Amino acid sequence: MPQLRKDPVVGRWVIIATERSRRPTNFMPAGATKAADFCPFCPGHEDKTPPEVLAVRPPGSGANRDGWEVRVVPNKFPALQIEGELERRGEGLYDLMNGVGAHEVVIESPSHTDDIPDLPAEHVQRILWAWRDRLIDLHRDERLRYVLIFKNYGERAGATLEHPHTQLIATPIIPKIIHEELTGARRYFELKERCVFCDVVQQELSAHDGSRVVLVTDQFLAIEPFAPRFPFETWILPRRHAAAFQSIEEPGTMHELAGVLKETLQRLNVALDRPPYNFVLHTAPVGDGVADSYHWHLEITPKLTRVAGFEIGSGFYINPTPPEDAAHYLREIAVDD
Amino acid sequence: MPQLRKDPVVGRWVIIATERSRRPTNFMPAGATKAADFCPFCPGHEDKTPPEVLAVRPPGSGANRDGWEVRVVPNKFPALQIEGELERRGEGLYDLMNGVGAHEVVIESPSHTDDIPDLPAEHVQRILWAWRDRLIDLHRDERLRYVLIFKNYGERAGATLEHPHTQLIATPIIPKIIHEELTGARRYFELKERCVFCDVVQQELSAHDGSRVVLVTDQFLAIEPFAPRFPFETWILPRRHAAAFQSIEEPGTMHELAGVLKETLQRLNVALDRPPYNFVLHTAPVGDGVADSYHWHLEITPKLTRVAGFEIGSGFYINPTPPEDAAHYLREIAVDD
Repeated sequence: MPQLRKDPVVGRWVIIATERSRRPTNFMPAGATKAADFCPFCPGHEDKTPPEVLAVRPPGSGANRDGWEVRVVPNKFPALQIEGELERRGEGLYDLMNGVGAHEVVIESPSHTDDIPDLPAEHVQRILWAWRDRLIDLHRDERLRYVLIFKNYGERAGATLEHPHTQLIATPIIPKIIHEELTGARRYFELKERCVFCDVVQQELSAHDGSRVVLVTDQFLAIEPFAPRFPFETWILPRRHAAAFQSIEEPGTMHELAGVLKETLQRLNVALDRPPYNFVLHTAPVGDGVADSYHWHLEITPKLTRVAGFEIGSGFYINPTPPEDAAHYLREIAVDD
Repeated sequence: MPQLRKDPVVGRWVIIATERSRRPTNFMPAGATKAADFCPFCPGHEDKTPPEVLAVRPPGSGANRDGWEVRVVPNKFPALQIEGELERRGEGLYDLMNGVGAHEVVIESPSHTDDIPDLPAEHVQRILWAWRDRLIDLHRDERLRYVLIFKNYGERAGATLEHPHTQLIATPIIPKIIHEELTGARRYFELKERCVFCDVVQQELSAHDGSRVVLVTDQFLAIEPFAPRFPFETWILPRRHAAAFQSIEEPGTMHELAGVLKETLQRLNVALDRPPYNFVLHTAPVGDGVADSYHWHLEITPKLTRVAGFEIGSGFYINPTPPEDAAHYLREIAVDD
């Protein structure tokens, strides 16, 4: 059983995979690529993944067979295990619990090569509904406190399989940076009685030159944030206050978001020549009393520079591209519909 | 002038290099290596760096000429500028200040290839004294709040020059993770009236199997921490309470530390076949009232796995090697004197 262990000083929880421990000789040298000739995510290979937990399929087509448009399956090598109790316990001054949770893969389309920016917005929308369905379903499990949805695209961004996919990890703890955002947003709310993200949206839209705005639609805004850690770090936020992504109910809203996500990634692709990238969905956790103070958003970070261990070890980032310059480049890109 | 900008939600400061902004086409593809035929850090090329701020030289040898053993120079492309005032200011809800600070390079030895584990402990000691001298000197500048000493070794760990060197960035803010440690340690002290790191040292040394201990000497301890983010993450701590590295005054203590650092890196080198690595010195900032609660230490992180953006974006780490296994491998290594 994997373990969740907490650092006694800064309170950061990490997953320690105790079952399949990697020996010193087991670390793949960077740059090595896996044999790409067989893809377990491509249509026709449905029996090479664990049975699907959700799929978008035409009426009448059978589960775990070809014909799907979006498919959600448990990760074959999960970081957390769905069975079992948490058994929170101490070990001297340390805290730990069992690594209970879910680890799933959202196979975004049958295409092995088309990524979100290459797919029709109509299809991207189906991926977003799949995220929402899984968020709502997993939030019903009382052992779980958070559902983290993220994507690693490209080998340098940590993807181990090429076929575009999103991952979902549901954990019994709230990840550190989400916790910090929740706390920071709550503190701002106590001071101002306003949501800090709403104020950010307001300030970015009302700036006379809109210098950090990449894209704006009726309901969504894509910006380069004021203090980005990485060059071309891009955030997508709803313009109207909403704590949770999963609160979206209107098909029109989801369709608009799909279009904004597609176009934002298209602009990054053109500007940066299809960079490896990551994104992380930051959404409110279950029943945490943050409806007024938190505001969901998606953080996209192209992988352009090497993040040195010192940056991870100190939390201190040096960004060589001002967000105003990045936004300017991204706005100037011509994008096809 | 570079800027320091603060994220309005989580309070993280980042350096935005506004002067030499990198355009989209400016990002070097990963894997590209720089021409290695000329090294500005090698002896004889002293005129290719800014004038030295400190050097260990035989008596009578002139500054900025061959003959040094350790040499500290300002970074030729500094992330922060030493001249100027901070000018803290707001921009709507955002906070920023001028990027004032120091950015120096400690050239660890005249050898282009020998790294700390390859050098005699006698020499490693001189590097540590150079760190201490620069820490004490820069702490006199009232604009500066913290001096961050770190190393990127190997291209995959972010080194852009091959010649082994440590870097030093002195900032007018306290880096986020150091701030979290100071806060966490102070909270523990308020609760227990003990230093949390002293308790960690105590628990690791008294565990019946010493399962996370790598190396122990009279005054120092090298361990795999209980909740490491990375495989083979290794910390070196003084066994007796000391908030600041720069408080070391005894030559015998510094010599012992040099030996522990050298041997720890030797063990990592043998176990992991000379991995790229980073280390960050965590030491108490100037006059921050943390003498009782904080405890300096060095965090070493071999770069074995790709850190996906999601880990940086969520603060959530999955570590495939339990620290007990890593410590076991490291203890078993036979090391030459």
